Amino acid sequence: MKSEHPAIKIKLQILCGEAIAMGPGKADLLDAIAAEGSISGAGRRMGMSYRRAWQLVDLMNRCWQSPLVETSPGSARGGGARLTAEGTAVLGDYRALQAALDARTGHADAATLAARLRARPLRSQAERGEASREG
Amino acid sequence: MKSEHPAIKIKLQILCGEAIAMGPGKADLLDAIAAEGSISGAGRRMGMSYRRAWQLVDLMNRCWQSPLVETSPGSARGGGARLTAEGTAVLGDYRALQAALDARTGHADAATLAARLRARPLRSQAERGEASREG
Repeated sequence: MKSEHPAIKIKLQILCGEAIAMGPGKADLLDAIAAEGSISGAGRRMGMSYRRAWQLVDLMNRCWQSPLVETSPGSARGGGARLTAEGTAVLGDYRALQAALDARTGHADAATLAARLRARPLRSQAERGEASREG
Repeated sequence: MKSEHPAIKIKLQILCGEAIAMGPGKADLLDAIAAEGSISGAGRRMGMSYRRAWQLVDLMNRCWQSPLVETSPGSARGGGARLTAEGTAVLGDYRALQAALDARTGHADAATLAARLRARPLRSQAERGEASREG
């Protein structure tokens, strides 16, 4: 479920100390691991390096009561990876809370705010200056 | 009003096309302008340059149906600045929506999610290696 107003974006972050234990990018990475069955495949799908994907998984695994992703031995760059029961539960709870927040943008106060927006910003003075020099 | 769970952070952004018309930093800048009565004073309070503060005000003023901040002529670096009626209304609506979202974290599902978190991340393998070398 997405925000009722495309102009209103809600970013949900779950903190463990100073670290971001879950957020939009990490949740998408968990989805990609579930779909691809490996950290390397998930990284490719997300357009990030294997090293970066591994670092995010390692951080998530250290932030929750038990690891969210388990790996099985394999060739170089690791074998398979899948979500643990904890990973599935945390991801589900995160998505449910995000959906509840997005649904909140259907209230009247959000519509009032969105109605005050322009579709796009007026051009800046610098842009207007360029346009007038262009003719 | 803050999140019911300090570990759960909700960042509300209002988009105008690709531009961020309102977000946590811009809302704080409007508060600072209302308190200081000038863009330069607000910038100092926020720890940002006058140029940066001015750019943020200029962008906000171009994203909404009418400007959020009006300035009065003065000495170098501008004279006074204050929120317009539109600025006061948009800021109030933004703060109200943020508070409604924060209140949502008082629901049981958010508590369930927060309860799964560690207070801080486990140390990484690299950190554990350093600790063991240190004895």
